[in-house]
This record gives sequence, C-alpha cells and structure tokens, in this order.
Amino acid sequence: MFKLLKTSTKSSARLGQLKTAHGTLSTPFFMPIATKAAVKNLTADDIKDLGSKILLSNTYHLYLTPGMAVMKAAGGLHKFMDWQGAILTDSGGFQVFSLSKIREILPGGVQFRSHLDGSKHLLTPKKILKIQHIIGSDIAMILDVCPPSKAGRKEVEEAVKITTKWAKMAAKEIKKQENKKPASVRQKANYGEARQLYFAIVQGGVHKDLRLKALGDLVGIEKDFSAKGGPAFGWDGYAIGGLAVGETSQEMYEVLDYLTTEMPKNKPRYLMGVGTPENIVQAVKRGVDMFDCVIPTREARHGRLYVDLLKSYKYKTINITNAKYKKDFSPINNTNLKQYSKAYLQHLFKTGEPLGMRLATLNNLDFYLRLMEKVRGDIKNGKL
Amino acid sequence: MFKLLKTSTKSSARLGQLKTAHGTLSTPFFMPIATKAAVKNLTADDIKDLGSKILLSNTYHLYLTPGMAVMKAAGGLHKFMDWQGAILTDSGGFQVFSLSKIREILPGGVQFRSHLDGSKHLLTPKKILKIQHIIGSDIAMILDVCPPSKAGRKEVEEAVKITTKWAKMAAKEIKKQENKKPASVRQKANYGEARQLYFAIVQGGVHKDLRLKALGDLVGIEKDFSAKGGPAFGWDGYAIGGLAVGETSQEMYEVLDYLTTEMPKNKPRYLMGVGTPENIVQAVKRGVDMFDCVIPTREARHGRLYVDLLKSYKYKTINITNAKYKKDFSPINNTNLKQYSKAYLQHLFKTGEPLGMRLATLNNLDFYLRLMEKVRGDIKNGKL
Repeated sequence: MFKLLKTSTKSSARLGQLKTAHGTLSTPFFMPIATKAAVKNLTADDIKDLGSKILLSNTYHLYLTPGMAVMKAAGGLHKFMDWQGAILTDSGGFQVFSLSKIREILPGGVQFRSHLDGSKHLLTPKKILKIQHIIGSDIAMILDVCPPSKAGRKEVEEAVKITTKWAKMAAKEIKKQENKKPASVRQKANYGEARQLYFAIVQGGVHKDLRLKALGDLVGIEKDFSAKGGPAFGWDGYAIGGLAVGETSQEMYEVLDYLTTEMPKNKPRYLMGVGTPENIVQAVKRGVDMFDCVIPTREARHGRLYVDLLKSYKYKTINITNAKYKKDFSPINNTNLKQYSKAYLQHLFKTGEPLGMRLATLNNLDFYLRLMEKVRGDIKNGKL
Repeated sequence: MFKLLKTSTKSSARLGQLKTAHGTLSTPFFMPIATKAAVKNLTADDIKDLGSKILLSNTYHLYLTPGMAVMKAAGGLHKFMDWQGAILTDSGGFQVFSLSKIREILPGGVQFRSHLDGSKHLLTPKKILKIQHIIGSDIAMILDVCPPSKAGRKEVEEAVKITTKWAKMAAKEIKKQENKKPASVRQKANYGEARQLYFAIVQGGVHKDLRLKALGDLVGIEKDFSAKGGPAFGWDGYAIGGLAVGETSQEMYEVLDYLTTEMPKNKPRYLMGVGTPENIVQAVKRGVDMFDCVIPTREARHGRLYVDLLKSYKYKTINITNAKYKKDFSPINNTNLKQYSKAYLQHLFKTGEPLGMRLATLNNLDFYLRLMEKVRGDIKNGKL
C-alpha cells in the first residue's frame, strides 16, 4: 500500500512509503537486479549490508531455471535465496521479446521457445500471476507486450491493445482470487500491505496519444472491476514500460512529462529498466517513484566504477583498468570499500581475479543506493 | 619463533605455536592460497571470518603482476590486500618450473621467461629474499629447485645440490642483513617473532639418501653460518618440497616417516602443497605442522564440496551439480553457510552465477579449517 508523504514544490518529485509483505520502503527507491535469484557476485546478505530493502528478480529466468517445481518446494524466492526484504518480479514479457528468438503473440498469451533449450512454453496473464505467486513476489507485474524501440506506430498500437486485453484478463483473475478469500481476511487492518501487490504496465512507446490511451485503459479496468461485486479492485501501482529501449533521454523525459501528470497520484510509479544516475534524477523530478536497472551491476563487471557523488549530483565514472590507477592507493570509495585501494582493484581486474567484479559491483550498487538516499533527502529538504 | 607445546604419545603429531610479526599461530595449521593477492572469490575479510590467521601467496605471480614497484608503493601485501594476519610466500621456484616453458638453471639462480608476456627474468636466492622483503611476508621461503615427479635420480640429486648451494647463498644474505641491524634491535625481547622468518626447503624426491642428505646440508648451513661471527644463524622452519607432485600417497608417507624423525624438533615442519584431508591427517601423525593446498579452493570452483566431517575424520565430497540436489533444501553446511540450501547452490552453478563459486569456496575452506581445529583438539586430548 502506497502513502504519498510529500510532493515537491520545486518539481514533481514525490516522497512516499510503499508497504509490502516484506517491509516498508521509502520512495523514490532503486532496485538491484537479482536476475536468476542472485545479484551477480553478491549474496542476499550483501544486498542487506548495502542498505537495499528490495530487489528485483526476473520471472522469465526463474520460470525456466530452477523452474516452478523447485521454487514451490523451496517455499518461494525469499527462502530460496535467503532474502528477508521485498521482491519485485517483472512479468517476463520483456525477456520473452528480447531473449527468445521464436515467439508468437496469441490472443490469450505469448508462446515462445526457451533461449536455453528450445522447449516450447505458453505464458498467459493468469499463468504469469500464478508463477509470481509461487515465487512469492511482494510486487507482481502484469503480463505486457514490450515493443522494441524501432517498432512502428502500428506495432506499438497493437502492443497497447494486447497489453490492455491481458491486463483485463489479469484483473479478472486477481478479482477471482480475492473473492475466494474470506471477508475476515480481507478486512484485517494490515491486509493491504500483507498481500501481494499488482502493478499494471503502461506501454505506448513515444506516442503521446497511445501512452494516454494505455493509461486510460488501465485506469478504466480499475473502475470496471470494482463495479463487478466483491471487494473493490485497484492496481497497486503503475509501471511505465517500453522506455530506455533505444529512444533518446529527451524523448523519454517528454513521455514522462505528459504521462506522470495524468497518472493517479495515490499510486506509486515505476519506470522500468531506467537508468543512468541522470535519468533517475530527471525521472524523479517528473514524479517517478521506483527504478531498476542493470547499469550499475553490468558496468561493474566491465571495470567501470561510479564514484565521487557530489551535492550537485555530479559524479565520475572511471575505468579501473586505466593505467593511471596502477599506483593509486586511494580507497575505491569512502563508504563500503574504504579498505581496498583502486590499485588493488585494478590488479584484480588485470589478473582476472573474480573478486574484482565483486568489489566493483559492491561499489556501484553502493553508489546507486546513496544516490537514492540523497534524492530522498533533497526532496525532504525542498532542494529537488 | 616456534614453541613446541606437546608431542602426542599415540603418533608423532605435535602441537605448537608459531609467532610471527602478524600474530601467533597454533600448529598444525592449513593456509588458504591467495595466489595473486586474493583467494579466488574471497576478500581478506572473508578469510578472517573463516577463522584463518594465515594465508599463502605466490612470489612468482606477485613478482610478475602487479610487480614489485606497485608492491613497494603499496607498502607490502598486507596493506595491498587489507590482510592483518600472517602471510607466507613461497620461493617462486615451483612456479618457475611448472609455469614457465623456457627456463635455465644457472649456478647463481634461475633464468626464465614469463608465462604472461615472454619477458626474461633472473631470480637469484638474494633477489627472491628481496622480493619477499618487499612483499612483507611473515614467512619467506628460500629459492629451491623442485624437480617433477617423473625426474630420474640424477635430476633429483642435482636439484638437491643446487638447492643446498642456493640455501647457502641465501643464508649468507640473511646473515649480512642481520649483521647490519644494530645489536639493540636484535636484543629486543620480541625480536625473534617480529622479524621475517626464513624457511629452508628439503628436496630429494622419494630417495631416502637424497632426502637425508638435503636435510643434513641445510642443518649444516645453520652451524656454518652461526660460527662466522655476528648473531647465531638458524632457519626458522623446514619445508618439505617436491612431494604431492605425482607420487603415491604411500610413497609420500614413507618419505615423511624417515624424514620427520631426523628433522630438528624445535622447528616447524611445512609440507608444501599437501593435500587431501587424509593426506593432512596422515602427515600430522608423522610430525608435520603446516600445510597449504589448492584442493579446497580449486575443487570448489568445480562444484565439488567437502561436507559432513565426522569424529572419525570420515567425510563426504559431493558434486553439487548432481541431479539429486535439485530439491535438496538442507543447508550447504551447518557452520558458515546455514542459510543457503544445496538446491540454491546447485541453481547458482547450473546458471553460471559467480556467487556459486564463492559459496562453494567458503564451504571448502571452512571444512579444511575445521579439520585443522579438530586435529589440534584431538592432539590436545590425546586422541590423535
């Protein structure tokens, strides 16, 4: 359940609280990515030590391996990877469209062949919910169609249409499950924060009318399904999908400009797969509350470090393999890696020691999490 | 400085204390291997958490990369990798003979080409000492010639001859450096444990007469150099080299049987590069005090885990990628990895998540260190 605490007077930036079955999160926040039940090179304890209260895992990957039989036997992803914080899982849609070479959109779902072994699978809005239920995600995403950046208007329009259709199917299923629960359960004081949360995804590419239509469709589903008897229905949050797929940052900001002003104020907004520190700050200013991105972890594995975050949000990225760090005995950073020098990290990268990637990952995630801490502080203090 | 605390009445097993400039170590002990200034996948903090008070690093590798200019600028290996415990460095001899394809033994040292870039290097007994001085090793090894297991008697005989010659050159250099120090420094109460310790290496293959000759030569050097004025000279320990290079365990035990009985009782004995848990227990029973081996860390990287150490020293090795662990939610072990299941570790290996190697390494080193703890306890209690 989301509580909006403050909206900035300087921008559209918001401070809020998102209560989940595994803890209360201060928004805006960033989610480290544990694609296959692990943030690369890190344990769940490491993520906790970094100060993150949530991580993101990929439904598509978990569905293929270890698979749902193992996930069910494990008692869900929290137990499987020993993570006590919150978990958001994506819908799998993005991976179906980016990883699987062979796929077909059917009215009822998407059929694809696994990128691992070629096996055939059908994912439906209902099945995606069931998978995320087995995973035990605190925040589940609705199946969507995410068109590539080079998609023409026609293709984007079709993606919106199917995404709406699938959202309706998902809403029906959610409502059905809710109706099965006794009223006594639903009336519990903390029910809203103890149950799984469901986020719908707004597609529409960089087309204003399609974005607004997509949003309108999803909001419409809330009204529709609330009218149909049983408990009122509402999405717990709205995600903005199909950005950061190749368009310019300026195009992305324009979408956010007209979209966030129309989005329900009392629901968290999640900009999927974004982005650089600049992207995040710009999106926060436009009213976005949640982020995830592979950049900090992926760049770390290539020796690219985010360092020296200033009050002005300026920072540096350095390539640790650069010759100038060979004898640089200054610490990697002054927060969580004070004890290791840049020279040591360079040595680890140059000699291919796997510890190098671990330290670089710890540095970059620490940077991103501190960035978000700063963002929240600056909204609170009226600076952002 | 070594203090022999107890010799078992059941076997030749010994309990002792080795004081170094970075802590006092209870013998018998095992040294995790930080080949290139890092135990693969682990930080120095991890080694500390595992309970090891010493690690081993490879002179040959550190000499080539990061190189001595960086090591000097870093202020030594302790600072470079943020390790507060003791460090033993090998002499580099073994690597010169196993990694470098092109090498030539000269009377004064060994000339070789780097296995990394083909650059030409000459390592002399004096230079090896200097390198280990820059590294800041607590325990430095004397340059030796380590013949391969398939070497004939002639070659082994030659190796002993050169190793003795080089040990003499090293003793001369050590003595020279000692003589330079003011008597006031050398007379300090803790001088013996605050200075760098020097271990000579006994070669001789599986030939009894050559082993005993090699040992006699090295003991003779102590007497010789003590007689030459200045402070008395003595090796701080004796290493047994050239074993675990291809001979059978039985052949190795036979060498230990006749060699350790002749070795000075008041000096620690270090069996280089050994071995399996059985090898270690058998060698302890024959009076060996120190061990190092790549087995626990290398096997971990292949998903092979040491588990279930029993009072009887029986244990199991399991291959975590085996299908039977797919739904095995029992913990990896009950000491340092209680929170992660075998099923999770299998998933990490199957999906190529680097975290898998880290967890497996933590398991195997924990096993080896607990094995040594048990060994010490059993000697103390008269059970070994």
